[in-house]
Amino acid sequence: MSKSGPTSDIHLPGGFAFAAGCAGIKVSGKPDLAYAEALRGATAAAMFTRNRVVAAPVEVGRAHLKCTKSRIRALLVNSGNANCATGAHGLWACEQICFCTAAILKAKSCAIIPCSTGVIGVPLPEQKILAALPDLIAQKSATPEAAMEFARAIMTTDTRPKVASCAFRAGSDTVKVMGVAKGSGMIHPNMATMLVYIFTDAAGSPSELKALLRPAVNETFNCISVDGDTSTNDTVLLMASGESKHRITVGPGRKQFQESLHRICGSLAEQIVSDGEGVKHVVCLQVEEARNRDEAAAVARAIANSPLVKTAWAGSDPNWGRILSAIGSSGVPVDPSRVNIFFGKQCVCRGGVAHPFDSERAHQHLSQPTYEIRVELGRGDASARFLTCDLTAEYVSINADYTT
Amino acid sequence: MSKSGPTSDIHLPGGFAFAAGCAGIKVSGKPDLAYAEALRGATAAAMFTRNRVVAAPVEVGRAHLKCTKSRIRALLVNSGNANCATGAHGLWACEQICFCTAAILKAKSCAIIPCSTGVIGVPLPEQKILAALPDLIAQKSATPEAAMEFARAIMTTDTRPKVASCAFRAGSDTVKVMGVAKGSGMIHPNMATMLVYIFTDAAGSPSELKALLRPAVNETFNCISVDGDTSTNDTVLLMASGESKHRITVGPGRKQFQESLHRICGSLAEQIVSDGEGVKHVVCLQVEEARNRDEAAAVARAIANSPLVKTAWAGSDPNWGRILSAIGSSGVPVDPSRVNIFFGKQCVCRGGVAHPFDSERAHQHLSQPTYEIRVELGRGDASARFLTCDLTAEYVSINADYTT
Repeated sequence: MSKSGPTSDIHLPGGFAFAAGCAGIKVSGKPDLAYAEALRGATAAAMFTRNRVVAAPVEVGRAHLKCTKSRIRALLVNSGNANCATGAHGLWACEQICFCTAAILKAKSCAIIPCSTGVIGVPLPEQKILAALPDLIAQKSATPEAAMEFARAIMTTDTRPKVASCAFRAGSDTVKVMGVAKGSGMIHPNMATMLVYIFTDAAGSPSELKALLRPAVNETFNCISVDGDTSTNDTVLLMASGESKHRITVGPGRKQFQESLHRICGSLAEQIVSDGEGVKHVVCLQVEEARNRDEAAAVARAIANSPLVKTAWAGSDPNWGRILSAIGSSGVPVDPSRVNIFFGKQCVCRGGVAHPFDSERAHQHLSQPTYEIRVELGRGDASARFLTCDLTAEYVSINADYTT
Repeated sequence: MSKSGPTSDIHLPGGFAFAAGCAGIKVSGKPDLAYAEALRGATAAAMFTRNRVVAAPVEVGRAHLKCTKSRIRALLVNSGNANCATGAHGLWACEQICFCTAAILKAKSCAIIPCSTGVIGVPLPEQKILAALPDLIAQKSATPEAAMEFARAIMTTDTRPKVASCAFRAGSDTVKVMGVAKGSGMIHPNMATMLVYIFTDAAGSPSELKALLRPAVNETFNCISVDGDTSTNDTVLLMASGESKHRITVGPGRKQFQESLHRICGSLAEQIVSDGEGVKHVVCLQVEEARNRDEAAAVARAIANSPLVKTAWAGSDPNWGRILSAIGSSGVPVDPSRVNIFFGKQCVCRGGVAHPFDSERAHQHLSQPTYEIRVELGRGDASARFLTCDLTAEYVSINADYTT
């Protein structure tokens, strides 16, 4: 698999072309429009935010997928404005953009999927986007360079573009899968809506795609926690052009596709957590011996979302008492006297009480940019893996003045 | 009502004596032992933490109240060590301290209520406490000065002692109620377990006390949120000596007692939120038009616990979009198009979309040390009031290196 390395390493799936442009939504003048076209159409599957407050493009995207039975022609993303809490105008602006994109492509309006990311509550300047559309679409190109430009144009506070791709042989076919994501962890997370687009040249029906996408998302993107907040615009979209002729449900290729999808989602999730000036440490939480996966995930989430635990991590402080306290407040009926906590290979808490440990070695472990903390609950044999990060003073400083 | 002002303003309830001392648990050498004695006994009602991980003194305190049917003789608090995650030794040490206190008083061991606050997972140095006990108890005194020393000795990272008291006439009796608390908001919150002791010279059975304590705690201490974490040692204890002869269930005095208790709990809750170097703003969240109180409280809690919202407050940033997003992720099935948000008297979001507002005036409002944010949900007529605070870079810096 290749991830965000040299552009030449990208395994570009057939049947897609990409473009990026500047509509002037971002004050910085940086690229803020990204376009991906399924040249001969694609089947799709999507997962959206669970926040009750959803942005206009999420509402429109859902309706469009329903209307076309998840067969799409193009994807248009703007960064710099979330088009959220913008009322009727927001919906109208979003539909207007889809309508004009479709007119250029001579496609149906509902074959266009719109996405937005940026500040909430500011009207979308749709005229700027409409004015930029013709040139944007005209310059589309089926090259790794164009895909990389796409990845850059969807960034908001991200410090680097996030791409992961891979290729595998299935019989006489070569199948390619490429994922592009944005979301920058701790920095301006309200701007840092998570957007993930996965392109493949395999063939699959929308329901086949959905069946594979759901578990991959649940075990990767749904297992990262940056600050516990859920964005109003979060979107994961999987698109299959079918150019490679390989059907994802057939033969040994099915398992290979599943694994590729999972690896790409995992890589993008890790890239999201580790990005952002505020993050000093990426922490891999391994919660074991739960009665079921939901329990393990609830405990992992309680640890990952505790400001006390996260600030201790910022200081590489081996304060396992805070982790134990977070486990106790997770809602899972844990018996503390059966809980063990490990920093790497070193046990620091056994049976809910202090276990003698080398605090210098523990501090070293917690000083690494990426490290593991393992928890055993002594309740069963289910487990969950969660990727999270520390809470630093930089995070607070940067988030303290974002709109003003 | 008097709160944490000059010691002479304290309304000291009859029937109680207080003392404070240094056992050498705190490295700083500051007072770390606090003692309160019900000279002729008292009835009591307690509420403890809901964390599954509880400290030894919480377990012992619960058992003692059960054993004596909530009739107590004395209260012994140590600061500097939480006696939590300390296993069998922690329980044994705690019982040992109660046993020796009782021996000096010629009382039953289970008439003593132990409390601890401080670091988790470090064995309690019970020998230091046992050695300090005789002198501590010998110097007890029924004076406002001694009560103030008690308030000081239970502090950990608190920057000031927290006391609130009042007196009222009920027929020919004067009834006094005094509350003492510790807990310092954002700073070292794991050390900053919330301990609250309320003393009164009214008379009441344990069940009468419990019936009055529960709603007072639910509407005050359970409506403050500092960082969303629940401590392993949180305790609220109400003690009634009966010296004033006034029975809390009788006549117009019942309502007066209830109001006094509520006001004292409210004052202590506010003192807890506003204490701590990290806190620049105390925010009063008023959530209205919910279907029921639980809903209103869930929305208030989602806002109060969102790091994004709290960091915006640190910068006096009128970023109402983050508040709307937090409301959407509260789990309450809110219809965003019915949500209004007010900064003081100024509406900033109406029907889920931006409402034109004077951003300079909004910034001014959010720059005050204490201010109100009001949310209308458009679902019903229940409401909740929540006291919370901002999340500052200082909080993170201080919490990043606590045990090391």
